[in-house]
Amino acid sequence: MTPLRLLEQRIDHKFTDPALLDQAVTHRSHSGKHNERLEFLGDSVLNFVVADLLYQRYERLDEGDLSRIRANLVKQSALADIAQTLALSEFLRLGEGELKSGGYRRPSILADALEAIFGAVFLDSGFDEARRVIRRLYEPVLESVDPHTLGKDAKTLLQEFLQGRKLPLPVYTVLAIHGAAHDQQFELQCSIAPLNIQVTAAGGSRRAAEQLAAAEALVQAQRACPAPLRGKAAKKSSQSALTVAVEQERMKRKGT
Amino acid sequence: MTPLRLLEQRIDHKFTDPALLDQAVTHRSHSGKHNERLEFLGDSVLNFVVADLLYQRYERLDEGDLSRIRANLVKQSALADIAQTLALSEFLRLGEGELKSGGYRRPSILADALEAIFGAVFLDSGFDEARRVIRRLYEPVLESVDPHTLGKDAKTLLQEFLQGRKLPLPVYTVLAIHGAAHDQQFELQCSIAPLNIQVTAAGGSRRAAEQLAAAEALVQAQRACPAPLRGKAAKKSSQSALTVAVEQERMKRKGT
Repeated sequence: MTPLRLLEQRIDHKFTDPALLDQAVTHRSHSGKHNERLEFLGDSVLNFVVADLLYQRYERLDEGDLSRIRANLVKQSALADIAQTLALSEFLRLGEGELKSGGYRRPSILADALEAIFGAVFLDSGFDEARRVIRRLYEPVLESVDPHTLGKDAKTLLQEFLQGRKLPLPVYTVLAIHGAAHDQQFELQCSIAPLNIQVTAAGGSRRAAEQLAAAEALVQAQRACPAPLRGKAAKKSSQSALTVAVEQERMKRKGT
Repeated sequence: MTPLRLLEQRIDHKFTDPALLDQAVTHRSHSGKHNERLEFLGDSVLNFVVADLLYQRYERLDEGDLSRIRANLVKQSALADIAQTLALSEFLRLGEGELKSGGYRRPSILADALEAIFGAVFLDSGFDEARRVIRRLYEPVLESVDPHTLGKDAKTLLQEFLQGRKLPLPVYTVLAIHGAAHDQQFELQCSIAPLNIQVTAAGGSRRAAEQLAAAEALVQAQRACPAPLRGKAAKKSSQSALTVAVEQERMKRKGT
């Protein structure tokens, strides 16, 4: 079995024209017949298929929420995650320079190649087959999505958490600004008086410091009042997903 | 014949579920069942169909050029132009406030409704039919596109024009800056010495003034040396389209 036959099995599509898959896994550093045009096509078929999936799945969400969720599902890191479930890096064709510098691990290269594969499937077998392939890969991702929190930043999540419990909004106070103009460090405090929460954080911009403080404050707020005011099952399940989202956000920011 | 039957004729699609078309022409100012979710879906099917049309039509363009051309074909003003060929404003359902303020003429409302119609066709009859409807409306637009100039700004076009004739790049010189810090006017000159061209222009930013000067300088440069160095028919035709593009750009900037 040729290596690409294995990739075909993983994406569950057998190419009528295998040269298309060849091209989809070929980075521009490798040769002239590379995947960038296929990526252009694949990016747009992916955006459309995910839009349609979300439109059908979330009948009550408005277009702003649908856009937010889609942006998070088709962003580079989300695509690179899916590429890793396929072990796509084993199939990539890279130029020598990229090979040596570990290009097969780079999220941008993995994400681009995955989009190119979607474009190749569309050219090979039409829209319905491209949709089937994309849907199959995205189904596990969609199962784990909380539509109410995905892609929202920590400040927004904290604000919504407090509003849902009829608590006042958090107060952000700059404590100090260190360093020269081009390299400042902002130190600030986020406090939620009724919960007796005071978190300090530092960041390279006011916004960054606020987000860090809000993420930590939200974790503490959730510990301080775990149950929402109105204890509906739906709310509770959404709340636990929120905890997960924030925890992931904290880990990401800490670079772990 | 109901009014919407006429719109169906114009877009060449008869709805199995006419309620979808109803919703597509309904602005959020009119009622709860409005077109914003359909617009989300329609925007993405449009982006994909146009990507596919361009991918097939321009086999040698790279993804950067394809993206540039697509962005120009699906932008609000391009959609509003197509909406006007359908006289879409006659079919819009707007709230009273929007009606009074002339919302049916607003490019954003027209463009959104047209996208919503594309989304409605997709839901009604599937992807192939949505592609057929979109392709039919875009064919005349595609015929008039010059892929080498569409969406490029005047400075870029001038630079490419001069490089194509092995002439040196234009020199931009700021002559004066008038006004207070928050309301400055930049006066500058664009000169092309070998063609004896000197154009002055003023604008609210350096960039704006440069673009105005470049647009005017390009028109003069084209008069000064109309024929390209290598006189291929293809180049000539591209050149005349370039003149049209720049002339349109000048008119737009002058607000006519």
